[in-house]
Amino acid sequence: MMGRKHQLLIDTIQRLLRREAYTNIKRILVKTHPADVAVLLTHFDDDRRRFLFDQLEDVDSRSEAVAEMNHQLAAEFLGEMDVGEVVRLLLNMESDDAADIIGSLPDELSKEVLSRFDKTDSDEVGDLLRYREDTAGGIMNPDFIALLETTTAQEAIEVIRQNREVDMAFYLYVVNEHEQLVGVLSLRKLVLVSPDTILKDIMEPNVVSVRTETDQEEVSRLVARYDLLAIPVTDGNNILVGIVTVDDVIDVIKEEATEDMLKMAGAGDVLVNTDSVSGSAKARFPWLLVGFLGELVGVALITPFLGQLQTHHLLALFMPIIMAMGGNVGTQSATIIVRGLATGHVNREMVFPLFWREFRVALVLGLTYGTLIGGVSFYLSDYSIHYALAVSISMTLAMLIAVTVGTLLPIILERLRIDPAVSTGPFVTSAVDVLGLLTYFLVSGALLNTL
Amino acid sequence: MMGRKHQLLIDTIQRLLRREAYTNIKRILVKTHPADVAVLLTHFDDDRRRFLFDQLEDVDSRSEAVAEMNHQLAAEFLGEMDVGEVVRLLLNMESDDAADIIGSLPDELSKEVLSRFDKTDSDEVGDLLRYREDTAGGIMNPDFIALLETTTAQEAIEVIRQNREVDMAFYLYVVNEHEQLVGVLSLRKLVLVSPDTILKDIMEPNVVSVRTETDQEEVSRLVARYDLLAIPVTDGNNILVGIVTVDDVIDVIKEEATEDMLKMAGAGDVLVNTDSVSGSAKARFPWLLVGFLGELVGVALITPFLGQLQTHHLLALFMPIIMAMGGNVGTQSATIIVRGLATGHVNREMVFPLFWREFRVALVLGLTYGTLIGGVSFYLSDYSIHYALAVSISMTLAMLIAVTVGTLLPIILERLRIDPAVSTGPFVTSAVDVLGLLTYFLVSGALLNTL
Repeated sequence: MMGRKHQLLIDTIQRLLRREAYTNIKRILVKTHPADVAVLLTHFDDDRRRFLFDQLEDVDSRSEAVAEMNHQLAAEFLGEMDVGEVVRLLLNMESDDAADIIGSLPDELSKEVLSRFDKTDSDEVGDLLRYREDTAGGIMNPDFIALLETTTAQEAIEVIRQNREVDMAFYLYVVNEHEQLVGVLSLRKLVLVSPDTILKDIMEPNVVSVRTETDQEEVSRLVARYDLLAIPVTDGNNILVGIVTVDDVIDVIKEEATEDMLKMAGAGDVLVNTDSVSGSAKARFPWLLVGFLGELVGVALITPFLGQLQTHHLLALFMPIIMAMGGNVGTQSATIIVRGLATGHVNREMVFPLFWREFRVALVLGLTYGTLIGGVSFYLSDYSIHYALAVSISMTLAMLIAVTVGTLLPIILERLRIDPAVSTGPFVTSAVDVLGLLTYFLVSGALLNTL
Repeated sequence: MMGRKHQLLIDTIQRLLRREAYTNIKRILVKTHPADVAVLLTHFDDDRRRFLFDQLEDVDSRSEAVAEMNHQLAAEFLGEMDVGEVVRLLLNMESDDAADIIGSLPDELSKEVLSRFDKTDSDEVGDLLRYREDTAGGIMNPDFIALLETTTAQEAIEVIRQNREVDMAFYLYVVNEHEQLVGVLSLRKLVLVSPDTILKDIMEPNVVSVRTETDQEEVSRLVARYDLLAIPVTDGNNILVGIVTVDDVIDVIKEEATEDMLKMAGAGDVLVNTDSVSGSAKARFPWLLVGFLGELVGVALITPFLGQLQTHHLLALFMPIIMAMGGNVGTQSATIIVRGLATGHVNREMVFPLFWREFRVALVLGLTYGTLIGGVSFYLSDYSIHYALAVSISMTLAMLIAVTVGTLLPIILERLRIDPAVSTGPFVTSAVDVLGLLTYFLVSGALLNTL
């Protein structure tokens, strides 16, 4: 949800645009934080976005605003400009932002941009583009302050003074003569020691670090677990090549949560989808197919019971509610397990107690709803105790089965090293539907054929 | 998922426990980070947890480990100890951690603990307990460094030297003589100016701050948007009362994502549920009731079509698959919208284009799956074109209706200021089920009665 502040800013700009009060717009934009300018730009349509962008006073504020936009949207926006302008804007950014945006540009434009970058910068950005987007290498910032073990505190402060453009220098990394990471030190500690102390004597030699190929999820887990503000990234030879800062970790955590939610619903894994309608349909097709095939198995399994449905046509009436209640309670269990596995609240040893707990919860809920639907079916069947029992027992059993599937399926997938998030959606619901309906026809067959 | 490192640690401790090699266990624990000790403690059962805890060398490492545990689990763990020990452990923690844990203790124990706290600390913790848990006041740390505007850089460094126990002092807050927040300054800037510069001349007077009653979700949004490491918290008179640091913001972001996922599934809003089975069943009951009542409306609406089902009993066969496909595609749309609203990717102005996009995606998917199921029903009905058309058109329409409900329901709820996350689960699925089935019977009635 958008804050009230943003709504106010947008309303103001809209009013000023209508009044063509362009000087006022410029005055507001100068005072607005780049992150808020990015929200503003994202909000307006193409023409007005370009117009507002042109009102930004210099290339610095322009490239800051673009860097703060969602990188896919930024790439789309830059795609409309000429190459020269794109290169100017990208050269002005942090290399990690530039690399991300270049990675999202159309192939031809990104090649053109890289070829126009002057040697140094292109190398740095090119290096970043080599790493997979979802690894430490892909999200790291190659600008950091690294100092030799033999540096004194005073010399270190001088280096910080000379590197004003390096962001977030609250940790200083200490390296040996081979540029290998050997320690870390906070800016605070540096300030508190006497000027001629050498770093080797005050640094912390146990540094939590990651490798360029470490998955970004693991990076975010380490930063969160040890309450770090940044984590150093090393290559295969333990040479320090970049740092991942906590603000990027926050983006990763949000992105991973979004990815999990979308996967649970079988709706792809990226929220801002710049794909065409058919591309989007293609991304969602396979998960729907899983559901479709699962339910087709259901159709095949119910076919033998068509005779039963013809004799006892009232049974059809309760098919939907039995399926739905199973699906709902199964999704509850699966979500609890999937999210628990992702956040580390659930681990292997907890499987049995957790399943047993879910099962008892389902028993309480199943008996409650079984009794309720029993009452309804008793009334609708003109007070047939057989109908009431069949529907009521089936709902209780369907809910127990659903919780069993919803709890165990994600755990089994996790053991098979398949992301359990993919299992809650179509997988769990179709399995639960089919098993629930089968139970319903078997139970009601047994009870009603004794009539 | 748990890291390999943790698995290794757990396996090692387990082996050493079996071998009763207690000295080795102690040696390992001394070298283990408190955050990892917490994972270890969480992993074992009550008896072994207590045993391992007793192996920790001093009260510092014990209280650090407890502070790193999930606060609800920590409260449960402390609940087994005697009050004296609990108080000793809590006095050793940061006040925000202590307050959180005390808030989760059983009522009687928490009162006893607070009464035993010595005056100063009890006040600080008591103050924190006054704020709602999900506000800036509830998550802030009341220990921070605040300096008067007239302080010099050299004096400021001296204050930092004297306050070694204050965490995360990378920002210094500047206040006037009434303790009101007037500016902020990074430690880095302080290091780079001449020692006699007064803070007023180098501080940034535009401070992003929050009030004690600000919702934690808004706090995390501001920290993430402006890439802050900490955000100051002020009371109604703009007096600085605490700071929220980025590590707590990370916890909030994870917690809010978990809450949204559980709400989407109607499974309560807290993952680690220390409630009893009946308490857990109670939390999940209302959402299931929404689904139940929705589906009962469905039962009532299908009743008039029972005659139709008796004549064309094959129709019953396709009820489940039409419901399921609608439910699946509707959940996909709802998830995309709900998560988009939560992350700010979706705003009010995007509603119509987004709906139109989802509708076209559903049209592609609906026609595809409609055709597929048409083929299946053509075969199963002994090549009746009427059956095939009825089933196929119904599935396409059901999927279009599902996407419409899934897209618009969360947006309507958001406008009514109801959390849209509650809408994806039982709300969307039961609405989709009922409307889908009704469409099915109306379409097939129209087509088959012309036979």
